[in-house]
Amino acid sequence: MGTLAAATLDRVTAQVPPSDPEDMHSRPGHLIRRAQQVHGYLWTAMVSKDVTPTQFSAITVIAARPGTDQIALSRESGLDTSTTGAVIQRLIQRGWVAVDRDPKDMRRKLLSLTPEGQRVFDEVAVRAASMTDRMVESLELGERAQLVSLLARLVAHGETLREAGDEAPTA
Amino acid sequence: MGTLAAATLDRVTAQVPPSDPEDMHSRPGHLIRRAQQVHGYLWTAMVSKDVTPTQFSAITVIAARPGTDQIALSRESGLDTSTTGAVIQRLIQRGWVAVDRDPKDMRRKLLSLTPEGQRVFDEVAVRAASMTDRMVESLELGERAQLVSLLARLVAHGETLREAGDEAPTA
Repeated sequence: MGTLAAATLDRVTAQVPPSDPEDMHSRPGHLIRRAQQVHGYLWTAMVSKDVTPTQFSAITVIAARPGTDQIALSRESGLDTSTTGAVIQRLIQRGWVAVDRDPKDMRRKLLSLTPEGQRVFDEVAVRAASMTDRMVESLELGERAQLVSLLARLVAHGETLREAGDEAPTA
Repeated sequence: MGTLAAATLDRVTAQVPPSDPEDMHSRPGHLIRRAQQVHGYLWTAMVSKDVTPTQFSAITVIAARPGTDQIALSRESGLDTSTTGAVIQRLIQRGWVAVDRDPKDMRRKLLSLTPEGQRVFDEVAVRAASMTDRMVESLELGERAQLVSLLARLVAHGETLREAGDEAPTA
């Protein structure tokens, strides 16, 4: 199994245009997109039609770090700065996040959950954990840890490439 | 490493609301979303600003199976039916996909690439393979195969849950 899959991947990454869509199903990018679709479906069906995964990521950081600011929130949630700004605005509109000015630096806005925001977080967190159980239930515990570890390394490397930004070859 | 990661995952999936955003970074759903962001960034930077990953998936299937129809394309590309219809319309508008009626069933539309569509496919396929190399370069070959295998199993299970549809618990 391991050897076969490695051989398939070698073929895929050999810079030869794939002629068979079977190859497509071994492409990490294609599988990541489909995994994202699966996650989106399960989120809507099992977690919330109302709170998005992105909003939940932001709320999770604010719940754990009351008084965090937009820059720290962006870094910890893995959202880019403009997305973070838009998400915060939406969470404020919904009455889930409150803003205070930093007495030491009036330009700095400190974010915290309102009681309603905390209630939403508590409810969604339980549902999200339950959905995650369901999504990974076909994998053994050790395999789940392996998937998390491999994805985390791919993401960390990809975000480094992104930060390198303009040095990357462009189309 | 394996044991530590397994312990982290146990904690995450134990249906206890995470109080620390560190836990968030061990959630498969969160990592899948960030991996999708990385892929989107690398696609735009290294493959194409013009052809989307979804369009490329559709083109890949049509290139390998000239005369395929919308239903088969939807199944093979992992796109849902309405997305597939919209993608095909767009590819026809761009002059990359041609439609013929099936002489045996005039309601059935057979899809194939135009010469320009084939040229786009050949060019994008090489760039996409090169981008994939870059995206996974921090993983050993065996680890890439492991990631592909684990994601494929997660996706297959998730799509089974999706097909089960209304039987899934809803929010």
